[in-house]
Amino acid sequence: MELYEPDVAAVPVTTILSALGDEARLEIVRELDRDGERCCGTFDLGLAKATRSHHLKVLREAGVTHTRIEGTSRYVSLRRDELERRYPGLLSAVLATAPTP
Amino acid sequence: MELYEPDVAAVPVTTILSALGDEARLEIVRELDRDGERCCGTFDLGLAKATRSHHLKVLREAGVTHTRIEGTSRYVSLRRDELERRYPGLLSAVLATAPTP
Repeated sequence: MELYEPDVAAVPVTTILSALGDEARLEIVRELDRDGERCCGTFDLGLAKATRSHHLKVLREAGVTHTRIEGTSRYVSLRRDELERRYPGLLSAVLATAPTP
Repeated sequence: MELYEPDVAAVPVTTILSALGDEARLEIVRELDRDGERCCGTFDLGLAKATRSHHLKVLREAGVTHTRIEGTSRYVSLRRDELERRYPGLLSAVLATAPTP
């Protein structure tokens, strides 16, 4: 099984901005930035599983995250280097902001 | 008449990202970055007037733009310095990207 992941070079910046422009998705990105690769089930965002899956799909399809499948588990990580090459300074400017209280 | 404009310090970064994460709105921001203050009616985005007004409202309410009313005209400008103070490097990282062809 393979999951769709775009070439970051082909992703419009608006798609990245729109993917990051949601509190739950930005929290996922902050946790991946802090922890590195995470198993999908370990995000405790107070969301229904289907909602969490939706947000992870939006991030993956926007080129923000990479998903690795191992057995029945999915592991998610940030595509930090690719994003930095395509949109220098963008992800770090976003991550430098404090989470909304 | 006064138009609602938030204190940028109180605007969550996700609101800014979401406002910029749209091709028409980002084009408006690019033109304001290039030209400085513009009269609302001078944006030729191939959009209906109501749609353009909607996008300008989203930008204003996200703290991205300032609207000055003079007689019956509205003039729009980027709140660049305030955005830079609140979210250093964010707007410039976005504007450094080439428009999607």
